[in-house]
Amino acid sequence: MSHFQVRTDLALEATETITEADSAYRGVRVEEYYPIEGDVKVTKVMITTKNAAKSMGKPIGVYVTMEAPAMAEPDEDYHREISECFAGELLKLIPDAGKDKSILVVGLGNREVTADSLGPQAVEHLNVTRHIVKEYGTAAYDCSRMDLLSALEPGVMAKTGMETAEIVKGVVEQTLPDAVIVIDALAARSVRRLNRTIQITNTGIQPGSGVGNHRNALTLESLGVPVIAVGIPTVVDAATIVMDAMERVLEQEKIPESYRIADGLDRIGSELNNMYMTGKDVDSVIKRVSYLLSEGINMAMELRMQRKGQSGEATD
Amino acid sequence: MSHFQVRTDLALEATETITEADSAYRGVRVEEYYPIEGDVKVTKVMITTKNAAKSMGKPIGVYVTMEAPAMAEPDEDYHREISECFAGELLKLIPDAGKDKSILVVGLGNREVTADSLGPQAVEHLNVTRHIVKEYGTAAYDCSRMDLLSALEPGVMAKTGMETAEIVKGVVEQTLPDAVIVIDALAARSVRRLNRTIQITNTGIQPGSGVGNHRNALTLESLGVPVIAVGIPTVVDAATIVMDAMERVLEQEKIPESYRIADGLDRIGSELNNMYMTGKDVDSVIKRVSYLLSEGINMAMELRMQRKGQSGEATD
Amino acid sequence: MSHFQVRTDLALEATETITEADSAYRGVRVEEYYPIEGDVKVTKVMITTKNAAKSMGKPIGVYVTMEAPAMAEPDEDYHREISECFAGELLKLIPDAGKDKSILVVGLGNREVTADSLGPQAVEHLNVTRHIVKEYGTAAYDCSRMDLLSALEPGVMAKTGMETAEIVKGVVEQTLPDAVIVIDALAARSVRRLNRTIQITNTGIQPGSGVGNHRNALTLESLGVPVIAVGIPTVVDAATIVMDAMERVLEQEKIPESYRIADGLDRIGSELNNMYMTGKDVDSVIKRVSYLLSEGINMAMELRMQRKGQSGEATD
Amino acid sequence: MSHFQVRTDLALEATETITEADSAYRGVRVEEYYPIEGDVKVTKVMITTKNAAKSMGKPIGVYVTMEAPAMAEPDEDYHREISECFAGELLKLIPDAGKDKSILVVGLGNREVTADSLGPQAVEHLNVTRHIVKEYGTAAYDCSRMDLLSALEPGVMAKTGMETAEIVKGVVEQTLPDAVIVIDALAARSVRRLNRTIQITNTGIQPGSGVGNHRNALTLESLGVPVIAVGIPTVVDAATIVMDAMERVLEQEKIPESYRIADGLDRIGSELNNMYMTGKDVDSVIKRVSYLLSEGINMAMELRMQRKGQSGEATD
Repeated sequence: MSHFQVRTDLALEATETITEADSAYRGVRVEEYYPIEGDVKVTKVMITTKNAAKSMGKPIGVYVTMEAPAMAEPDEDYHREISECFAGELLKLIPDAGKDKSILVVGLGNREVTADSLGPQAVEHLNVTRHIVKEYGTAAYDCSRMDLLSALEPGVMAKTGMETAEIVKGVVEQTLPDAVIVIDALAARSVRRLNRTIQITNTGIQPGSGVGNHRNALTLESLGVPVIAVGIPTVVDAATIVMDAMERVLEQEKIPESYRIADGLDRIGSELNNMYMTGKDVDSVIKRVSYLLSEGINMAMELRMQRKGQSGEATD
Repeated sequence: MSHFQVRTDLALEATETITEADSAYRGVRVEEYYPIEGDVKVTKVMITTKNAAKSMGKPIGVYVTMEAPAMAEPDEDYHREISECFAGELLKLIPDAGKDKSILVVGLGNREVTADSLGPQAVEHLNVTRHIVKEYGTAAYDCSRMDLLSALEPGVMAKTGMETAEIVKGVVEQTLPDAVIVIDALAARSVRRLNRTIQITNTGIQPGSGVGNHRNALTLESLGVPVIAVGIPTVVDAATIVMDAMERVLEQEKIPESYRIADGLDRIGSELNNMYMTGKDVDSVIKRVSYLLSEGINMAMELRMQRKGQSGEATD
Repeated sequence: MSHFQVRTDLALEATETITEADSAYRGVRVEEYYPIEGDVKVTKVMITTKNAAKSMGKPIGVYVTMEAPAMAEPDEDYHREISECFAGELLKLIPDAGKDKSILVVGLGNREVTADSLGPQAVEHLNVTRHIVKEYGTAAYDCSRMDLLSALEPGVMAKTGMETAEIVKGVVEQTLPDAVIVIDALAARSVRRLNRTIQITNTGIQPGSGVGNHRNALTLESLGVPVIAVGIPTVVDAATIVMDAMERVLEQEKIPESYRIADGLDRIGSELNNMYMTGKDVDSVIKRVSYLLSEGINMAMELRMQRKGQSGEATD
Repeated sequence: MSHFQVRTDLALEATETITEADSAYRGVRVEEYYPIEGDVKVTKVMITTKNAAKSMGKPIGVYVTMEAPAMAEPDEDYHREISECFAGELLKLIPDAGKDKSILVVGLGNREVTADSLGPQAVEHLNVTRHIVKEYGTAAYDCSRMDLLSALEPGVMAKTGMETAEIVKGVVEQTLPDAVIVIDALAARSVRRLNRTIQITNTGIQPGSGVGNHRNALTLESLGVPVIAVGIPTVVDAATIVMDAMERVLEQEKIPESYRIADGLDRIGSELNNMYMTGKDVDSVIKRVSYLLSEGINMAMELRMQRKGQSGEATD
């Protein structure tokens, strides 16, 4: 109806705007499942062709979306389940050569801007191990094999004068991780997904997406190693929410197209530029969901060790 | 058009919704002036009758609104001018018996919630003097007369288990200030006023207004001393902004009333409950405007001393 | 040996400087026990006469000191045991009339000064209930009886311009708690006690003790209700530690009194004025031990409810 | 007297322990001057031979120490003078090829540990320009030539799992600055130098120095570009201060060597391991002195432009 560009970082929401019959769907496969008793819904969107990528406005790759309505609520026990679920989905996307892995986690965003501090807050609680294993060997831990975990908070360009990609590339070339996990705050289209959804994708991060303007490409192509991007929507673009609300009302009322509402919408969109919508409890919610992510990554590292341990025994 | 209750803490915006011919205007007087070369516009709304108070949804009293578009921008020099202007307007509302005054400044709100931290941040930079004058007398300062400034951050009920008014009342009864200044974050109706407007009123604070739910009455009646409330809108209620945008579009297009849009609007309003809209730079803007307020109060205390000094000479 | 005044807020350390034969001991009783398998040592010093109080430099009352070496270490499970132990000792000092109690917890100190932020950090994690019970009655909780918990962070005089005691007295008179718990950072004499000791006393807080200068009397006399003071030593006075170290060396070597070392010591003492000694991890340790205190108080409130519930059943 | 290793990061203090006649002085040159009316004393220690370097325990290079007693006091105007003075001394140590320079400032240390947060706090207030000049060219600024300033807060190894040097090396290789300025908190021997001294050296940073354990070599050799290290002592090692105090007293009293005090001292030294001494106002002082450093670097960048502008005119 309007020419207004709907702004969302969620592949899940991008698919919703395409009708079933749309030819783009030829290159898009969608799977849904409920890993833990119906509380978490996982939707896996696989974009497999260039045409589909173009229609969706997202690169070829796998996009896993976990919807967990309880995520934003303050109940630690439930969170643990979501963290475990997240750990499992994350591991599926990390290429596993069956040997020890070195993983670098990068927390994007600005720690001084609450809604953009998901990445910096998430890397703060990781159990980094790389320096200990480098110094003492795997004997420092009670296991025969060991993943190395390292973490980086590169900061934002306005504070560093450098592209995030320059910093990450430099650190990757020096420390040679086998894979990079990038954590970032996202923008959602729907208020209902705010702080209740985790997106995991093996496409890395492309310029221009996300809450802030703090990055350019962090991908397999640019860094030379697989890049898994993890994000939680912490804001809804203000213009998007206004557009959405209006279109819903107008459609319900079947107001004829002859009323040229699109122009008015576009005007409002530009007024609301740089505004976003968020909940009153954004500070405490982001603290909670960032902790959920870091716990999930900590669990994933331990799960990897267990799996390798088991398969190790099996091959003996 | 809609039954939706427009939410604003600004008397200025409340007056905008009433038509000129409205009988309420019989009890409302409005003055406008530009104290500093057109950069700051001051609007003084005086509500003088019970009827007017009822129509406006605001108690009888004086509401001074300073609109300073540059306030949210990072330019220190301009801010000083706005601080001075604010100091001047503030002094006009503090009853002056021509003798030394003891002023208690109360910073309302939750320092952990960025958009609600205006009050706590503002009291942090005050030049409190009460304890020094109590200990050393006015000889501690280079003047014959002295105002006593004290400051309190009472916290929010969810953290204290006490009503803000209980805490403030207790402290007032112990320390006996001549007047109380209460600082609080407000909600505006218009995005254009966000962080660009200061409201000063001699009505104190009534229950139910403001961003959070952290207060009940702080007024001359409840505290026994004059209460000046100072606020800056830091958020716009999300539902309000959506309603406003839609009504503007619908009016432009002259969509007939037969389309029952009001119901749809009300539904959306409840969906957006507890959401608010704010700028991306909210963290740094609130740091800046809270400093502007505390500097203004510091200046007001010095101005009072100068004035008293002058009038003292005059009476000799 | 030196005229230097040993500075300690711990009654336990004050008793160490008095010899067994000292007449002061007639008014001092000391008990020791290990409530949980030897990990925590509790020493109960009871000062019962004015003479003893004068000799000890501490008012008449009960001083419970818990020494828990593991307290400063990052192991959550052990902390829980210490919190429980602390809850038990705290309850013994709160006068219990066998009916519902209303307790106000006051966190003294300056949250901007790490070593002095124990009080402010501790009140942050309390489960305050007073406002909920006031609004909804005990039906809001799953029990027939209910303690009311409220919390206050009064700030420091340099920021408020008011004596802490003025603020607390005002709030006590408005909200009428049955008892007050005051939490404050202490100074120890021995480095070994730093962040590893909790002192609980029913004497409240007297002017001039503690890390900062942020208080005057908070006692039964000044507030009209029982005041339990809880403290953890977070710093060692620098002069004290130097004196202590030197005296130990000099004594070991039996250096004759003819060397007039006392004068040199006094000179050094004044040089080190306002300096204190602390561990490198002070920021994270204080976060941990303040949480331990707040959890202990939360537990104490629940324990009180259970006890009352049990005795209630017994009397039926 | 004692075998205890005096711990200081200040070349100035290291020279004090060597007697005038010491052969080491053959390779050490010391200059003193007062750049601004006696308020700031600059001492320039030049270590020129390997022998001297070994005796001093510091590498060959230039060490400039600015002693500014007022630095730790809260007076902004004086600070500006010190910042200017610091800017001047800093420029003398940056190799100047007479053309535009690109400078990377690295803030070492742990922002969560107050006494170690000098570096992270200092980089926060820099006027970084690299990204703007890269995007818009020098036309973005009102000058024909332009230095590029970028900034990095690499974090500490316990949080990143990586050596600081790995991170810095990676970023240097990607962004190719012409010089690196490294800012770090230092340990002083004397309480009188705490937060009142700035050390600037062209030797970079060697492993094992500094408050924390957060670095290995950041030098011309390791990074391939000149490295200027800037530091302010924020702590005094506790053992050092005790030793120093005791030795002074013992010397004054001329206590004979037959008393074997050295052993006692060594024992005390190990007891005080990991303890440090600092002022009560450490949080606010470090905020102030870190701002002084960042302002100084901002000034240095502008001064460079002015100088180049002048020489540019001269050559026309």
